[in-house]
Amino acid sequence: MDFAYSPKVQALRERVSAFMEEHVYPAEAVFEQQVAEGDRWQPTAIMEQLKDKAREAGLWNLFLPESEYGAGLSNTEYAPLAEIMGSSLIGAEPFNCSAPDTGNMEVLVRYGSAEQKKTWLEPLLAGEIRSAFAMTEPGVASSDATNMQARAVREGDQWLINGRKWWTSGACDPRCKIMIFMGLTNPDAPKHQQHSMILVPTDTPGVKIIRPLPVFGYDDAPHGHAEVLFENVRVPYENVILGEGRGFEIAQGRLGPGRIHHCMRSIGMAERALKLMCQRSVSRSAFGKPLARLGGNLDHIADSRMEINMARLLTLNAAYMMDTVGNKVAASEIAQIKVVAPNVALRVIDRAIQIHGGAGVSNDFPLAYWYAMQRTLRLADGPDEVHRMMVGKYELGKYVSREQMKASR
Amino acid sequence: MDFAYSPKVQALRERVSAFMEEHVYPAEAVFEQQVAEGDRWQPTAIMEQLKDKAREAGLWNLFLPESEYGAGLSNTEYAPLAEIMGSSLIGAEPFNCSAPDTGNMEVLVRYGSAEQKKTWLEPLLAGEIRSAFAMTEPGVASSDATNMQARAVREGDQWLINGRKWWTSGACDPRCKIMIFMGLTNPDAPKHQQHSMILVPTDTPGVKIIRPLPVFGYDDAPHGHAEVLFENVRVPYENVILGEGRGFEIAQGRLGPGRIHHCMRSIGMAERALKLMCQRSVSRSAFGKPLARLGGNLDHIADSRMEINMARLLTLNAAYMMDTVGNKVAASEIAQIKVVAPNVALRVIDRAIQIHGGAGVSNDFPLAYWYAMQRTLRLADGPDEVHRMMVGKYELGKYVSREQMKASR
Amino acid sequence: MDFAYSPKVQALRERVSAFMEEHVYPAEAVFEQQVAEGDRWQPTAIMEQLKDKAREAGLWNLFLPESEYGAGLSNTEYAPLAEIMGSSLIGAEPFNCSAPDTGNMEVLVRYGSAEQKKTWLEPLLAGEIRSAFAMTEPGVASSDATNMQARAVREGDQWLINGRKWWTSGACDPRCKIMIFMGLTNPDAPKHQQHSMILVPTDTPGVKIIRPLPVFGYDDAPHGHAEVLFENVRVPYENVILGEGRGFEIAQGRLGPGRIHHCMRSIGMAERALKLMCQRSVSRSAFGKPLARLGGNLDHIADSRMEINMARLLTLNAAYMMDTVGNKVAASEIAQIKVVAPNVALRVIDRAIQIHGGAGVSNDFPLAYWYAMQRTLRLADGPDEVHRMMVGKYELGKYVSREQMKASR
Amino acid sequence: MDFAYSPKVQALRERVSAFMEEHVYPAEAVFEQQVAEGDRWQPTAIMEQLKDKAREAGLWNLFLPESEYGAGLSNTEYAPLAEIMGSSLIGAEPFNCSAPDTGNMEVLVRYGSAEQKKTWLEPLLAGEIRSAFAMTEPGVASSDATNMQARAVREGDQWLINGRKWWTSGACDPRCKIMIFMGLTNPDAPKHQQHSMILVPTDTPGVKIIRPLPVFGYDDAPHGHAEVLFENVRVPYENVILGEGRGFEIAQGRLGPGRIHHCMRSIGMAERALKLMCQRSVSRSAFGKPLARLGGNLDHIADSRMEINMARLLTLNAAYMMDTVGNKVAASEIAQIKVVAPNVALRVIDRAIQIHGGAGVSNDFPLAYWYAMQRTLRLADGPDEVHRMMVGKYELGKYVSREQMKASR
Repeated sequence: MDFAYSPKVQALRERVSAFMEEHVYPAEAVFEQQVAEGDRWQPTAIMEQLKDKAREAGLWNLFLPESEYGAGLSNTEYAPLAEIMGSSLIGAEPFNCSAPDTGNMEVLVRYGSAEQKKTWLEPLLAGEIRSAFAMTEPGVASSDATNMQARAVREGDQWLINGRKWWTSGACDPRCKIMIFMGLTNPDAPKHQQHSMILVPTDTPGVKIIRPLPVFGYDDAPHGHAEVLFENVRVPYENVILGEGRGFEIAQGRLGPGRIHHCMRSIGMAERALKLMCQRSVSRSAFGKPLARLGGNLDHIADSRMEINMARLLTLNAAYMMDTVGNKVAASEIAQIKVVAPNVALRVIDRAIQIHGGAGVSNDFPLAYWYAMQRTLRLADGPDEVHRMMVGKYELGKYVSREQMKASR
Repeated sequence: MDFAYSPKVQALRERVSAFMEEHVYPAEAVFEQQVAEGDRWQPTAIMEQLKDKAREAGLWNLFLPESEYGAGLSNTEYAPLAEIMGSSLIGAEPFNCSAPDTGNMEVLVRYGSAEQKKTWLEPLLAGEIRSAFAMTEPGVASSDATNMQARAVREGDQWLINGRKWWTSGACDPRCKIMIFMGLTNPDAPKHQQHSMILVPTDTPGVKIIRPLPVFGYDDAPHGHAEVLFENVRVPYENVILGEGRGFEIAQGRLGPGRIHHCMRSIGMAERALKLMCQRSVSRSAFGKPLARLGGNLDHIADSRMEINMARLLTLNAAYMMDTVGNKVAASEIAQIKVVAPNVALRVIDRAIQIHGGAGVSNDFPLAYWYAMQRTLRLADGPDEVHRMMVGKYELGKYVSREQMKASR
Repeated sequence: MDFAYSPKVQALRERVSAFMEEHVYPAEAVFEQQVAEGDRWQPTAIMEQLKDKAREAGLWNLFLPESEYGAGLSNTEYAPLAEIMGSSLIGAEPFNCSAPDTGNMEVLVRYGSAEQKKTWLEPLLAGEIRSAFAMTEPGVASSDATNMQARAVREGDQWLINGRKWWTSGACDPRCKIMIFMGLTNPDAPKHQQHSMILVPTDTPGVKIIRPLPVFGYDDAPHGHAEVLFENVRVPYENVILGEGRGFEIAQGRLGPGRIHHCMRSIGMAERALKLMCQRSVSRSAFGKPLARLGGNLDHIADSRMEINMARLLTLNAAYMMDTVGNKVAASEIAQIKVVAPNVALRVIDRAIQIHGGAGVSNDFPLAYWYAMQRTLRLADGPDEVHRMMVGKYELGKYVSREQMKASR
Repeated sequence: MDFAYSPKVQALRERVSAFMEEHVYPAEAVFEQQVAEGDRWQPTAIMEQLKDKAREAGLWNLFLPESEYGAGLSNTEYAPLAEIMGSSLIGAEPFNCSAPDTGNMEVLVRYGSAEQKKTWLEPLLAGEIRSAFAMTEPGVASSDATNMQARAVREGDQWLINGRKWWTSGACDPRCKIMIFMGLTNPDAPKHQQHSMILVPTDTPGVKIIRPLPVFGYDDAPHGHAEVLFENVRVPYENVILGEGRGFEIAQGRLGPGRIHHCMRSIGMAERALKLMCQRSVSRSAFGKPLARLGGNLDHIADSRMEINMARLLTLNAAYMMDTVGNKVAASEIAQIKVVAPNVALRVIDRAIQIHGGAGVSNDFPLAYWYAMQRTLRLADGPDEVHRMMVGKYELGKYVSREQMKASR
């Protein structure tokens, strides 16, 4: 449990914070305006400018622990930076640190072939293209990932892919050139060896972006959350990553750091919501007193502070465990933060909305949008329920064997 | 506490339910499509058709207790009908029972002059025009209504109105021909006699609809929640309702029934969310079991049932008290339902979202939209905090006098 | 949903309230003192005096719907009286309305033979003796009643009883002359026909009161919650009630009214806790203000009022349904109040404790004792979990058949 | 945030754990029995034996950061040991690490005169005597410590003390030879300089132990929580600690470490409750499944794990801040854990009670007793409300000055 910010991390925090203050926060309104004008589904000029600035500032690919490709930071070191980036919905992309690209790049770094790295990892690392991850399906309960039914069938030296995916975030963005498709390839194998990950270029014939899915009315343009139909899509057999039937193996490796990133960003968003709540509560008055002095408002502020602090420490500790004992031993801790962080963020944001009154649910403040985004994180990458179940089982595992538990089902 | 459904009410419930099943639910998708096509801010054909049908079916103006104008139902009698209408976001307007028209019509029935009734009440009752209520302001904490700053100054036989309002719901709809403006007219009078309500036709020069305010990402078109600028607006002095400085007096009379309506609609929405939750939980499976059998899902269903039942009984009891002992004696009960009903609806809808997975936050189900709408009800007509404060003070009033309490402030 | 207090009920409420004010509340300290002095496990003189007074006042056996034996009140009529009695831990016994005697008397009224009625019902109705109900067992999870293992085996014209029971409330009181033992008699019958209820006089050889079980440190003397060992106990075969294997059938009939009683008493206790909370909050000051004006205290008072009101309405509605459509149709409603009422009481009492500071957890106020007693009600007669499960299943039953649900287990 | 367990701490943890397993847990039943037999208010033989063993094992006065007197451990180093001790209600005293002695010893170490140290600190460090802290008063809201009214008036070279204190824990134990009395000495001084701490030997004439205050139904014998009357008590003027009017100054220094101790013990107790909950949930069955597989039980286990982990990290972080930046800068963090730790413990224990059924509220398991003890910690040393207020104000202080806040009151 040594997750003090080292001098190196402290220096990076200061640089990232300064960048946010100087460039990102002021760009939020510009970004919103550029999206609102013309075609919502085209990349914005402002984001490309931010990327240029961050690249110049040497704040690039900070998420990547592999130092030959990225910043070489451990999870413990990167987490405090992700928190800062998370304080803005446009805060991660300037640093080339936004999901789902980060996860996809990690997959390619760890499991990609030389060819795959050259073709897809390099432009992703350079921020020239973006990517998507096609896993969740509309037709089944995706909380149980083994429910996935989209098929990829080997035909000679090709895969023939058919199926429907959704929540394929980022696929609406024209910069998205590559998708990692996960689907059923080996239906007769043991349960967790039936699925594979296959690289599918977005422009492959048969790949159809059906529609962007809104989240509480927000389309999240130009990123977007796509429903994607794969209709007789053909890609070379070599596009499979790591090998047939190894989809879940890769997914496990992919998810750990991704959760740290997501959770720290949630905490960063919660921190900013708390800041807005405090500022509003001292700047508006009712019944002759500032809002901060009325009823339980101060308690809500205090509860928010406590919950944020606890969520941060829990996440840092999970990051520290991942760095020191590995994702597998840290499985319960990773599941814990996946439940805790978005729920804390939602509670804090909801309190902030309430203290802002009508302004809180409108778009004059970012709170309602943040709420919508955080709400999806109680579902994305597995719903709360699945992670809670895992934490509970892990706990019981201290007292009964896995076999005894299964027998009692 | 006699709020059994009388045979008359039971018969009406059946007729309203049948109308919803036959006409309204099937129209939801049509309505959505008509709004999406062309100009979002024009009324839809489908809604006018629904109104025709409801008028023909004799299900019209059910909300109005005054029998010379409407159905002549008591609060206790109307409440169960409002619940049914509330199960659809387009469920009240077909019956000419939607906010803010209902409240505005009640104001005109009770406090309007003969002339005001003829000019504005009659077309409203006929469903030919719609109306808005301009009270909340962006520049102050509207939780304290005495903060209102928009001014109306008498100049000869006219009012000169200046100020900025928002959350003026319905003002974006071109059918909205009349607004009730509430503003400061008598700044030197005692606190609750400083404001008046004045009728302002929407097409009066100087009335500027600035923009529709979105709620989360929903614009609620073609109804919309407008920011309205009043810039040197002039209307005849006779447009004041009831008299100068009597705004709060009218507001008190207006709010009671409105809260019953809103709360019963919230409960109707919660009921439908629970239905969706149950249906989803038995139709999808994960880990080899229907979702209903996993973890705490069944508990969430049970909790929803209990919370809905309690909220309904509380609201019916408040309606019954309004009918039997009057709004003033029922003040605490009315405040209670204002806190309880939207919060229950939000909890139930949120659980329903969770069990729907990604579909729940999208627009494939109405849940996220409902959530957004219910969320505003924790703020509209006074935030939870103000109503909780009133309930608490009422309770303390059993043990100390109002004077003692004030002295201790 | 007509549960207005009729004039008859209103008159009874006033009489019971007056009796509580005049006799019961002042007797609380006396009772406590008499228990503290001498043998805790002897009945107190004060209680016998209270009983005499209530009998004289004609406030006797109010709980019994059968008019030949008792007051002939419906559940809806008795509920408001039970609430008042529940405001004191010694409030029900003076009226001969305390558990478990009420349930036992109902069993005898409905299912007892003429002989059983004469021997046991009559002295119970007269308040000359008390009784106990021996069902829960220490060795199994009693949440599943079919787990019961204590055996009664027919040997000729006798039952031979062996087994261990606990939470046999009242069995420590020397006035307890009769127990209803429920145990396994027909292990080969279908699941809910394996158990019988048998009358066992407390002084039968082999009946051993092992110990009183404390509840959060309180022994609840002289009533007490006994662990009872049945060691080769022999009673006549005729002591079986209604017939062999009909234990669950009787239990179902017994539980409905018992739950209304318990829940209304919980609500009465919560009401009194709220009263204490209000009084304390206006009579003590900190930081220059009465406690009621500090932080979220007023919100806690308001929340308590809302929760109590909802719990009361829910319980009255369940009582009304029992009276009008019967226990079976009202099964979900009865389960709902069993969850809601004690939990509401616990929350209200806990808030009251908090506002009393150290005094709240001591015995200077009754709050901590009340908390302990209410806490057991989340377990007694089935834990929350079992009732929530029933409510949830009932809800799902609207959408899938019982068979489909079983198949999916 | 470096609160990894150093090798030194890790070694101590193992030794303390081993001692608990070998000596303390097996002694719990013996302790309970020795208290139950004979005079409850006499020290037990078993505790003295445990102390001897711990002293021999070199596990003595571990709490004391001053190495000339104690173990010389920092807060960060001692916290993990306090957690282990906290897993038993008799777990701290064997190591001479129990409240209120620890706080009293710290006061004497830091602020005591040479004479005071010799007379009282030495026997306390040796475990030969015990001590009490007389601060809270029955007549006022002690949440506001400046309400304290007990008086100490200088008369020549003596203090004349009059007043009533309660919750003077440990004062019922005959080994308690010395009390630190805190009372009003300088009523005309500024608010936080009016009170002093004065050493009062328990056997001083006029010191009257009125009664032990029970907590729920537990008397906590032989320790006990005393109401103490000071009636014309006279002690030498030199008995004042540090100096007149410096009571609050000392109290501030005393409270920081005390809170770490209390909170870590709460966490230790929560951990053991979780262990009991898990063990019960896999060893009992209902409806054909182990309890762990029913409804939301697994969720309760998971939530408990998450809450405990967060509370621990928050407390360790507060300890680390106290060690590195001092109590003053860590004021908000210390207030945070004071709210969080007992509430988490209560929630976990309550869930454990529920899964134990009736056994949970009885004394067959320690859960109900633990619940009662933890419940007091939401009041002792300031109620939750006061600490939440401090956290909230600290947060607002980032945006407005203390003066602005005061002005707005």
